[in-house]
Amino acid sequence: MKEELVEMRNSFLDYVKKMTAYNEALGLMFWDLRTGAPKNGVEQRSEVIGMLSSDLFAMSTSNEMAAYLAKLSPEKGQFDERTQRLLEECQKEYDRNKKIPASEYREYVVLQSKAENVWEEAKSKADFEMFQPYLEKLVSYTKRFIHYWGYDKNKYDTLLDMYEPGVTVDVLDKVFGELRDKIVPVVHKISESENKPNTAFLFEHFSKEKQKEFSLKILEQMGYDFNSGRLDETVHPFAIGLNPGDVRVTTKYDESDWRTAVFGTIHEGGHALYEQNISEDLVGTPLCSGTSMGIHESQSLFYENFVGRNYSFWKQNYDLLKQHAGGQFDSVDIDHFYKAINESKPSLIRIEADELTYALHIIIRYEIEKGLFNDEIEVKDLPRIWNQKYEEYLGVKPSHNGEGVLQDVHWAGGSFGYFPSYALGYMYAAQFRKAMQKDIPDFDELLEKGDLTLIKEWLTDHVHRWGKMKQPLEILKDVTGEGLNASHLSDYLIEKYTKVYSL
Amino acid sequence: MKEELVEMRNSFLDYVKKMTAYNEALGLMFWDLRTGAPKNGVEQRSEVIGMLSSDLFAMSTSNEMAAYLAKLSPEKGQFDERTQRLLEECQKEYDRNKKIPASEYREYVVLQSKAENVWEEAKSKADFEMFQPYLEKLVSYTKRFIHYWGYDKNKYDTLLDMYEPGVTVDVLDKVFGELRDKIVPVVHKISESENKPNTAFLFEHFSKEKQKEFSLKILEQMGYDFNSGRLDETVHPFAIGLNPGDVRVTTKYDESDWRTAVFGTIHEGGHALYEQNISEDLVGTPLCSGTSMGIHESQSLFYENFVGRNYSFWKQNYDLLKQHAGGQFDSVDIDHFYKAINESKPSLIRIEADELTYALHIIIRYEIEKGLFNDEIEVKDLPRIWNQKYEEYLGVKPSHNGEGVLQDVHWAGGSFGYFPSYALGYMYAAQFRKAMQKDIPDFDELLEKGDLTLIKEWLTDHVHRWGKMKQPLEILKDVTGEGLNASHLSDYLIEKYTKVYSL
Repeated sequence: MKEELVEMRNSFLDYVKKMTAYNEALGLMFWDLRTGAPKNGVEQRSEVIGMLSSDLFAMSTSNEMAAYLAKLSPEKGQFDERTQRLLEECQKEYDRNKKIPASEYREYVVLQSKAENVWEEAKSKADFEMFQPYLEKLVSYTKRFIHYWGYDKNKYDTLLDMYEPGVTVDVLDKVFGELRDKIVPVVHKISESENKPNTAFLFEHFSKEKQKEFSLKILEQMGYDFNSGRLDETVHPFAIGLNPGDVRVTTKYDESDWRTAVFGTIHEGGHALYEQNISEDLVGTPLCSGTSMGIHESQSLFYENFVGRNYSFWKQNYDLLKQHAGGQFDSVDIDHFYKAINESKPSLIRIEADELTYALHIIIRYEIEKGLFNDEIEVKDLPRIWNQKYEEYLGVKPSHNGEGVLQDVHWAGGSFGYFPSYALGYMYAAQFRKAMQKDIPDFDELLEKGDLTLIKEWLTDHVHRWGKMKQPLEILKDVTGEGLNASHLSDYLIEKYTKVYSL
Repeated sequence: MKEELVEMRNSFLDYVKKMTAYNEALGLMFWDLRTGAPKNGVEQRSEVIGMLSSDLFAMSTSNEMAAYLAKLSPEKGQFDERTQRLLEECQKEYDRNKKIPASEYREYVVLQSKAENVWEEAKSKADFEMFQPYLEKLVSYTKRFIHYWGYDKNKYDTLLDMYEPGVTVDVLDKVFGELRDKIVPVVHKISESENKPNTAFLFEHFSKEKQKEFSLKILEQMGYDFNSGRLDETVHPFAIGLNPGDVRVTTKYDESDWRTAVFGTIHEGGHALYEQNISEDLVGTPLCSGTSMGIHESQSLFYENFVGRNYSFWKQNYDLLKQHAGGQFDSVDIDHFYKAINESKPSLIRIEADELTYALHIIIRYEIEKGLFNDEIEVKDLPRIWNQKYEEYLGVKPSHNGEGVLQDVHWAGGSFGYFPSYALGYMYAAQFRKAMQKDIPDFDELLEKGDLTLIKEWLTDHVHRWGKMKQPLEILKDVTGEGLNASHLSDYLIEKYTKVYSL
C-alpha cells in the first residue's frame, strides 16, 4: 500500500475515533439526565448536548469527511475488513445527512421539537385534531426527504432501511402477513377460552428494595458484567452502551406489580449483553454498537421471553423470587405462577401488550406507515383506520384517541419506519432460538440449573461480537442459514399458548 | 458600535460558549468516574476525556481565538463589562498556553503522568530518592515555563498568579510570616496544656446511613439547593459546579469517625454554595466559576470552621446529631462535645490537621516552593528542610519521608504555587467573617436558631454572584476595605483556642 494512502487511512481512523468520543460523551449526558441530574441544570445541559450534537453532525458531513471518502473508498479493497465497513458506514451517514438541504433540515428539527410538545398535550386531551397539522407536516417533510434520499421499489423502503438495513416492504408484507394470519385466530381463541389464569396474586405489595435485590441476581445469572455496568432507576427503562466496558441498565419499580422491574431488567439486560460483548477491536469506531434496532431488540426479547418467561427458568428462580417477596406467592404453585406470567389479553396499549399480541400492535403501525408514505392513507383518516384495525386484529376498540392513535411518541418525533424493528426483533429471536437448539439441545435443562453461560457465549459468538461488522440480514443468514421467516415465531407462540390455555 | 464589531463580538461569545460546553461535558465525566463508573469502561473514558481536553486546549490557542483577541481587545472599552472580563480571561489563557512550545508541553504532560505514578510508589515505600529525579525534572520544566511566561520581581510570583491572581511573594512573606509567628506560640502552649479534651466518644460506631441523613439536613440548613445539586459518595470528597443549576457534592463515610463525612460535607457544601449562586448572566462563559482557588477555599472554610465548628451552631444541631447517632453522645454535654471537635494537636499530615495548625503546614510548603524557584533550595535537600521546619513550627518530626515530604500529590502533578491558596482561603474567610459582623451582628444567634439564610445571602451578594467578574483581591477590597491581613485570622484563632484550652 502506498505510504500516502496509509497516512490518509490513519488520519481517517483518528477522525472517526474523535466522533466516537463525542458520541460517548453525549451518551453519558443522556444517561445522567435520566438518572438523577438536578432539574435546574437541565436547561444548560441541553445547550451542551445541542452543541456537541451539532459538532458531531458537522463532522459527519464535513469537507474533511468528504475528502476521506472520496480518496479512500475507491481503494477499499486494499484495507482490512474493519476499515472497509467503517468507510461504508460513514458513506451512508454522509449521504443521509448531506442530501437534505441544511435549511430544510433545520426547519424540520424545530418542527420535531414543537410536534413532540403538541403531541404530549394532544395525547393527554385525546385530541387528534390538535396534533393533526403537525403530523401532516412531519409526513410531508419526510416525503421530501425520501425524495432527496431516493428509493427503488417502494418509498417506505427508504425509511425501513434507516433502522433495519436490507429489510423491504416486499419482505415485511410477506412475514408480517403470515404472522398476523397465524396469531389472530389464537388471540380470538384465547378470548373465548374458559381457562383464564388467576393473576390477582401478582399485584400484591412487593418492596422496591427486594425487587432490586432479585433483579440484580437475575442480571448476574444472565452473565451481565457488573464491572462493565451498573443498574439505576428511571421512569422509562433503557440500556445504553457507552463502550463495551461501560454498559448501563436502568429499570423502574412498581411496588404493586413486580413484573415491571423484573421483566424490564431482563429485557434491558439482553440489550446490555449485546453491547458488553462487542469485539474489543471495534472500540473507538461507530461499528462498536448493535447492528440494527431489530437485532438489538432480538437480544432483549430473547432474554425477556425465551429465557424470562420460560417454565424451566422459573423452576430455578421461583424459590428465589419467593424469598424476596413478602409472601404473595406462598400458596401459588409454579404451574399457576407460570400461567399467570404468561397471561395473554388483547390490550389497547402497545407497551402493555403480552408476548402473543405484541406483534399485532406493530403490524397495525406498519400497515399504516406503509400506506402513509405511498399516498394510500391520509393523516386525517388515521384515527378511523387505527380503530378499525385494532378491532379487526385484537378485538378491542379505543374509547378515545389518547389510548389509540396518539399513544406512541414515535411519530411525533418523526421516527417513521422504526416500529417494524420491534416485531422483527421478535422474529429474529425466534429464528436464533431455533438455530441455537442444534448447538444447545439442553437449553431448558441449563435454565433449570441456572447456568446461562453457554447461551450467552453462543449469542456472543453469533451476534454480539460482530457489532456493526455484519448487516442484520447477514447475521441472520450466517446464524440460521435462511432469511426472515415468520414460522419459527408463530410455531413457538402457537405451541406455547395452546398449552398455557389448553386450547 | 460598528456592525462588523458587533458581529465579531457575537461570534466570539459563541466560540466561548462552545468551550464552556466542552468543559461542562468534561466535568460530568470527571464526576461520573468518581461516583460509580464501571471500572472496565475507564480506559476508553480516559480516551474520550483526552480527546475533548485537547480540543478545548486547541480552541483556547487557535488562530480563531488569536483573531478575536487581536480585533476585539483594542476596542474593549466599547463593550459591556462581562465581555471585557471575558476578553481578559481568554487573553490570559491564550498567553499561558501559547507561550510554551508545543513539543515541550507534550513532553511535560508525559512527565507529569509518569511522575504521579512514581510518586505513588515512592510514597508507599517512603523512598524519596526514587521520586527525586522526577521532581527535579518537574521543577526544571516549570522553571523554563516561568522563563517563557516571564516574571517581574520574583519568579515564584508567576506561579502564584496562576492560582491566586495578584498575590505575590512580597505579600505572602508578610502575612504568612505574621501568621506563623502568632500561631506557633499557641501551638506550643497547647502542647503543654493540661486541659486536653476527652475525644474517645467521637470514634464510636456511627452508621453510614444515619451520617448521610444528618449531612443532608445540614446541607439543607446551609441553603444548598437540592434542585441544583445532589450528594454522592466518593473516596476523595469534592464539589463540582457543572453550571449553577447543577453543582454536585460528594462525601466519604467513616463509620468510626463521623467527623469525616459531616465536616467534609459542610466544607464541600461551602464550595457548592459559591457555584450555585453565581449570577445567571455568566452562564455559558468561563466567568461562571469561582474566581480563584483561594476565594473558593474561603467559602468552604467559612462554613466548615466559622459555622461548623462554632458553639452556637451545635447548640442548634447537637440534639439532631444525637438523634442520628447510636448513643455515643448521650453522656457528653455540649461543652465537652464542642471542645472535642475543636481539639488541636500538631500532626505530620496536612489533610488531618486541625483549624489552628493547618496554616503552618501550608506555610512550610510555601517557604519551600519559594526557595525552589528562586534557586535557594535544591530538590535533593527537601527531606532535610521539610523535617527541620516541621520540628520548628509544629514540634513534630516525620519518622520517614512517606509521612513527610512525599505526603502530597501536588508536586508530582506539577502544581507548584497551589498550596498557598489553602491558607489564603482561611485568611480571606476570617476577613469576610469580620466584615460580615457589621451587617450581621447577631451571627451566633442566627446559627443557634438554625437560620443561615442571611449568612448565605450576604456571601452571595459579596462573593458568590460575581464569579470571575472580579479578581480575588478586588473582592477582598470591596468587601473588607483592605488587602490581605493576617490579624483577623490570628485574633480569631488565639481567642478561640485560649478559651478551648483555658490557656
